[in-house]
Amino acid sequence: MSSSARRKATDCKVIVVTAEGRQGSKPDLLVTEEPMEIRAGAPGNEPISIAVTMRTPGHDFELAVGFLFTEGIITHPDDVRSVKYCELVEGEEQRYNIVTVALARQFDIALARRAMVTSASCGICGTESIDQLLTSAAPLSLETGPSLAAQVLIGLPDSLRKSQPTFERTGGLHAVGLFDSVGKMKVVREDIGRHNAVDKVVGNCVLDKSVPLDAYGLLVSGRVSFEIIQKAAIAGIAFIAAVGAPSSLAVETADRFGVTLVGFVRDGKANVYTHEHRVAM
Amino acid sequence: MSSSARRKATDCKVIVVTAEGRQGSKPDLLVTEEPMEIRAGAPGNEPISIAVTMRTPGHDFELAVGFLFTEGIITHPDDVRSVKYCELVEGEEQRYNIVTVALARQFDIALARRAMVTSASCGICGTESIDQLLTSAAPLSLETGPSLAAQVLIGLPDSLRKSQPTFERTGGLHAVGLFDSVGKMKVVREDIGRHNAVDKVVGNCVLDKSVPLDAYGLLVSGRVSFEIIQKAAIAGIAFIAAVGAPSSLAVETADRFGVTLVGFVRDGKANVYTHEHRVAM
Repeated sequence: MSSSARRKATDCKVIVVTAEGRQGSKPDLLVTEEPMEIRAGAPGNEPISIAVTMRTPGHDFELAVGFLFTEGIITHPDDVRSVKYCELVEGEEQRYNIVTVALARQFDIALARRAMVTSASCGICGTESIDQLLTSAAPLSLETGPSLAAQVLIGLPDSLRKSQPTFERTGGLHAVGLFDSVGKMKVVREDIGRHNAVDKVVGNCVLDKSVPLDAYGLLVSGRVSFEIIQKAAIAGIAFIAAVGAPSSLAVETADRFGVTLVGFVRDGKANVYTHEHRVAM
Repeated sequence: MSSSARRKATDCKVIVVTAEGRQGSKPDLLVTEEPMEIRAGAPGNEPISIAVTMRTPGHDFELAVGFLFTEGIITHPDDVRSVKYCELVEGEEQRYNIVTVALARQFDIALARRAMVTSASCGICGTESIDQLLTSAAPLSLETGPSLAAQVLIGLPDSLRKSQPTFERTGGLHAVGLFDSVGKMKVVREDIGRHNAVDKVVGNCVLDKSVPLDAYGLLVSGRVSFEIIQKAAIAGIAFIAAVGAPSSLAVETADRFGVTLVGFVRDGKANVYTHEHRVAM
């Protein structure tokens, strides 16, 4: 492990090559990727390991709390008693790669186990998890969620980019922003994993007690998979815009959950896939 | 679930919006995202579930076998006795979302459990998994691997794009190609998850008995995380080129494993991060 557990970007040196051969070396910046373990402890119990996610350091407490929230392990800001880095392990770097959330109540071990399997990843969930989502997060009311003027929608990526300094330098980060009905960003977070960036945004709002987020929409700098829709819907977010493409399952899930899904928001255009009534035409 | 379990792209209809408002609707193509469960069965035992990955249908058997190989659950082509879609579940779509690999020998349940947690994802692995990799995959010899002329290296993305039809249409797929020392693609695979695309490429080579892949390099259409290096190293691949940015941990892991890592192969240039001796300057 590098000693970069607290830095979003890591210095390195590269050799630049063109078709003609080596053109010399130059300093470069890499987006930091480090594992972070999320532990949760119920009153009177030792904390247990819930997940390990490969993340970009920064806003680690938000990531831990947001993950527990979007996985359904906690459902209310008051469920969180405290959030701490590990105090028991040896070595500075390890300390900042383990976050323990002390909870104010018992939690569902079965849900935690599901989280250990599905985890913070874009990789793993079963067919069941769609049905599980349907039971754990009720479809959102078509009356909730922000309504956006077309002009506001088209301007969202500009607004996000202005709040995203690291990406400009490394080219390796996803950014996610939570916007209101006039396109103002409430919070913007970056991570090497888009799911982590969503969890950081949601975790920020759990910690400042502003969930559920039904007055807000989520802008994602890249593509949208099923998992992003799932996490957003659990947080009450009924509007998702993306600079990149949605997947088939993202569109299907957004449709079923009453979520407005807009993709390819770029170059002055956007494609509305579901529930277009929230885009004022 | 949609009935798209066997199609790489799914039709849909979108409403096109500009800052001026609604501009009408048009047909569109979405990259298909569907869960696939991988099961493995040792002789005389019922198959057990190893992982569920969100994947793009196509080359499912390669994905299943490649995943088992890059997770270290199988180590040789002869370990695979047969690969089948599930014959027991009801409904066409479910059938094609479960792949069972019958193995010729017993396998390590602990490794399988680790796979269930780390899985096909870009999300989950602990600090231990680097050390685990160091024990399960020995560092590659600096003498192995293809040596590439700078001109060949720079031309790789063009070669990949020519073999990648779906991406052009949906904008939602990663492509991974296995190339030889003159830049010829041996196999190219696409998937919504880059880790799946790597597994499909490796699985293709396990099924045609051409592993280990020390004569080849891997080109990735996007970014490179730790996990890609890990999977490649287990397959014996000592050269990884990417159109996008590598992460800090990808560079660190490539360095430790003797893997040549090149990023930002685009616009006639490339950045060499580690073990530059395999790029003939």
